[in-house]
Amino acid sequence: MSTPVSAATVAAVGERGLIARIRARLPEAPAWLHAGPGDDAAVAAPERGALEILTTDALVEGVHFDWRFSAPADVGWKALAVNVSDVAAMGGTPRLALLSLALPETLALDSLDGLVDGFLAMAAAARVALAGGNVTRSPGPLVVDVTVTGSAKPRRVLTRGGARCGDAIYVTGAVGAAAAGLGWLRAHADLIAEPRDAGERACVERYRRPEPRARIGALAGRNRAASACMDLSDGLADAVRQIAEASGVGARLDAEALPIPAAAARLFESAGVDPIGAALAGGDDYELLFAVPRRMRGRLTTVARQSRGVPLTRIGEFTRDTGVRLSRGGREEPLPAGFVHF
Amino acid sequence: MSTPVSAATVAAVGERGLIARIRARLPEAPAWLHAGPGDDAAVAAPERGALEILTTDALVEGVHFDWRFSAPADVGWKALAVNVSDVAAMGGTPRLALLSLALPETLALDSLDGLVDGFLAMAAAARVALAGGNVTRSPGPLVVDVTVTGSAKPRRVLTRGGARCGDAIYVTGAVGAAAAGLGWLRAHADLIAEPRDAGERACVERYRRPEPRARIGALAGRNRAASACMDLSDGLADAVRQIAEASGVGARLDAEALPIPAAAARLFESAGVDPIGAALAGGDDYELLFAVPRRMRGRLTTVARQSRGVPLTRIGEFTRDTGVRLSRGGREEPLPAGFVHF
Repeated sequence: MSTPVSAATVAAVGERGLIARIRARLPEAPAWLHAGPGDDAAVAAPERGALEILTTDALVEGVHFDWRFSAPADVGWKALAVNVSDVAAMGGTPRLALLSLALPETLALDSLDGLVDGFLAMAAAARVALAGGNVTRSPGPLVVDVTVTGSAKPRRVLTRGGARCGDAIYVTGAVGAAAAGLGWLRAHADLIAEPRDAGERACVERYRRPEPRARIGALAGRNRAASACMDLSDGLADAVRQIAEASGVGARLDAEALPIPAAAARLFESAGVDPIGAALAGGDDYELLFAVPRRMRGRLTTVARQSRGVPLTRIGEFTRDTGVRLSRGGREEPLPAGFVHF
Repeated sequence: MSTPVSAATVAAVGERGLIARIRARLPEAPAWLHAGPGDDAAVAAPERGALEILTTDALVEGVHFDWRFSAPADVGWKALAVNVSDVAAMGGTPRLALLSLALPETLALDSLDGLVDGFLAMAAAARVALAGGNVTRSPGPLVVDVTVTGSAKPRRVLTRGGARCGDAIYVTGAVGAAAAGLGWLRAHADLIAEPRDAGERACVERYRRPEPRARIGALAGRNRAASACMDLSDGLADAVRQIAEASGVGARLDAEALPIPAAAARLFESAGVDPIGAALAGGDDYELLFAVPRRMRGRLTTVARQSRGVPLTRIGEFTRDTGVRLSRGGREEPLPAGFVHF
């Protein structure tokens, strides 16, 4: 992947030109969006009888992404995906996004176009309308700051604090794939290479373009299929710890139950890393973690089936004693730490 | 003003610690905010029967502010103020904010505290609740990215495209003060100095801590006291041009009518700059520009009186011919350009 710097840069176009360039790529706005990009602010009709979910998250060049590992379209996709994931983790349905860009003057126009197209591809997949934003110059890294709002019916919101002891811990999809993919990219940073194996390729793709679990999140909220939910942006261990802390309970995870893809486990092992520890600590898996009381388990299974059959794995339970532990080979040990941004 | 770097930096505290530090400074949340900072996303009850206004704007170190000229609290204040101004320019009432920070590791904790306190002082003044946000590391400049949402009743929104020929152009407060203040700061950049004259001090203060016209904006929308509105973030000339273009009309400004403070005019003149041109082109005046049909003029005057008597000056009118001109000493000339970020 080449560094996205070429002759035609964003500095040559100017603020107005850049905004016009982005607007030209937008699909038709939904009817509830009364005013989109182009005025002082966007104007939207809220969803009747719903609560509003709001979240903001940024990708910073050199911190959250590396041009050697991600194409501009991957960065645009991921900047929106991580916010969609946060709305899903609240049981909400995402609706609109604001895109705030701080652009280095040397950024190629082609790269900006790619970034916007990646963003809009994710927006189309999650049915999110780009309602507005901001473009400014950055004397340092590219910063892609995104706000997403969504909706959820009252008493259908999934917070972190609702887990009770005895609730089962379920996770969607697979864990560790993104961390394994990033590991592969780092190991091949100075080579022109793409993984040849389909499993490894899937890990790299998961790192570059996470698939937020928008549908199962919204359905789990709407159908009250969980007592608490959180996404795995900062890793599985972190999510379990956060829900346990917010809910005033403990947790026990079953190491053997973790849905670690075979290719990810192989990549960790060939790097001399314990796959269980790496999968627990690795960030960038935008899966959802659910706390599920016994009476809701059938509902959650139904909801998973309705969400294009997203895999759902029971990996442990929340406990009365407030420690957070990992059960492995019949023995219990403290859960390793998660990913920390600072 | 000293560079805000000291022994205790944000890197020493970590992401969680920084979020806890910010949350500890928050006042009690309003009842309609069901979940604030601390979960995957914020949850708010929308205002019944209202449209939602959404805007995002960022301040970037080295582009929008300079530590030699602004204290951390000024930066925090201004980062929110510029967004409140955008909501006011739509005729809306601001309600909640999201604060996304990209922090250099060397930033002093004291500076972060100051920034947050400045932000919260503006939030209290504008009755805005800080509902959530994000904290990450920046390998480059400090970036303060803010999203504000507000509300307005249907058919009470003030867009840029509603001006008709014959509508008068009104501006709140004064123009040119912020640009004159920034000029003073630049001229004294290497000196430890504060302006001794009250007028000059007011210019510097206006640059550091703009006062968004939240009340008159909201009242003008609610009472349909204008056909179009925009804020002067990028200068008066730019605002007139933008409204004229969006509305398909021309405009003529009366140079002699511009409310340029005497101290600002003196500062421009002593720097060898034409005060009229500087006041037209200078950004950072967060005043509001209104297009006002004849039948609405009484209403706008009433609304200004209800807004703590904010000054309101008629400075020209929108015209049938689509040029944008300045009338000065009986002659007409093209309007100079506004402030451009790239």
